[in-house]
Amino acid sequence: MPHQHLLTLSTRGRGMTDITARVAEVVRASGVVTGLAHVFVQHTSCSLALTENADPDVRRDLETIFARLAPDGDPAYRHDLEGDDDMAAHGRSVLTGAGLSVPVGDGRLLLGTWQGIYLWEHRTAGHSRRVVVTVLG
Amino acid sequence: MPHQHLLTLSTRGRGMTDITARVAEVVRASGVVTGLAHVFVQHTSCSLALTENADPDVRRDLETIFARLAPDGDPAYRHDLEGDDDMAAHGRSVLTGAGLSVPVGDGRLLLGTWQGIYLWEHRTAGHSRRVVVTVLG
Amino acid sequence: MPHQHLLTLSTRGRGMTDITARVAEVVRASGVVTGLAHVFVQHTSCSLALTENADPDVRRDLETIFARLAPDGDPAYRHDLEGDDDMAAHGRSVLTGAGLSVPVGDGRLLLGTWQGIYLWEHRTAGHSRRVVVTVLG
Repeated sequence: MPHQHLLTLSTRGRGMTDITARVAEVVRASGVVTGLAHVFVQHTSCSLALTENADPDVRRDLETIFARLAPDGDPAYRHDLEGDDDMAAHGRSVLTGAGLSVPVGDGRLLLGTWQGIYLWEHRTAGHSRRVVVTVLG
Repeated sequence: MPHQHLLTLSTRGRGMTDITARVAEVVRASGVVTGLAHVFVQHTSCSLALTENADPDVRRDLETIFARLAPDGDPAYRHDLEGDDDMAAHGRSVLTGAGLSVPVGDGRLLLGTWQGIYLWEHRTAGHSRRVVVTVLG
Repeated sequence: MPHQHLLTLSTRGRGMTDITARVAEVVRASGVVTGLAHVFVQHTSCSLALTENADPDVRRDLETIFARLAPDGDPAYRHDLEGDDDMAAHGRSVLTGAGLSVPVGDGRLLLGTWQGIYLWEHRTAGHSRRVVVTVLG
């Protein structure tokens, strides 16, 4: 039977939180040797990203890129009930995705040396976020 | 053995169709209690999106955002055999993806309260679309 | 037990390489009849895309679209240690994703007629790339 675990994380507003170690711990606890780890956020205004884990400027520049792709406070938006960052957050979420899978081999996440798993908060205010990790072997 | 089911849907041109209930029904029929539901479109000019299921303006604003990211009828495109929306549809498809996975727990899709699964038609004309749902437990 | 195989590919710089046949061969070798094939690149400056496999102009136009979304040498970037294409490559990687899953049925990849699986190199120079294929049944 697959192993499933709910992580709850508090974000501090727009930006990325490295959750690689949290996901790796669920994989270890699962006992799965070969398979797949699936990570999923139960929200539509944050997302997950696999990106470079060494230079924080990469995450900063990703904010620059995405701020252009789905800008805050665009006058063309109709959905702005929760503020200028509301629709932008939904746009960024669809562009990057609520879920991602990483292969598991030798009982651990088969990430490349420079890959980290990040929870990407797209709202400007901090939120409590639910992340479901499912490990199949 | 995983459970697999083919859904066939008719779209009415560009826009999103909520397929959450259809996918949930396949999960129920599978009998899987804990695992993963994978949804996949066998096409390169429509895609899948997980997004806000309450306010239709969100889906409208997503069209606004994506119309800028991969505009119709861009003179820089070479591939336009099927019209102004042809290459734009391929671009939107690559940006959003042909597949997505949702965790299954307690025998049901573990979606957040505001998350819906949408088939996103990117062509301006309606099409018949094939969606393969695979449930692993 | 899931079947897992590492593919190593040499790219010739920015552009797409069709890896559908390589992935299909791993699926055949796995003996899995019904399930899921997961493909994953262990890098943050290349990615995977499922797109049209008939007209090479589609891949060319996708380069045009993505060159605008995450432009090379943007003066707003801080991360440029490896050149003008460095940060652009990370941006394209997050937009398209390091992993994708394709359903397996009747012992083969359930791709649509026009769908191909592509390794998308985002750096201008060629690189050796590691692709992990995991087949679950």
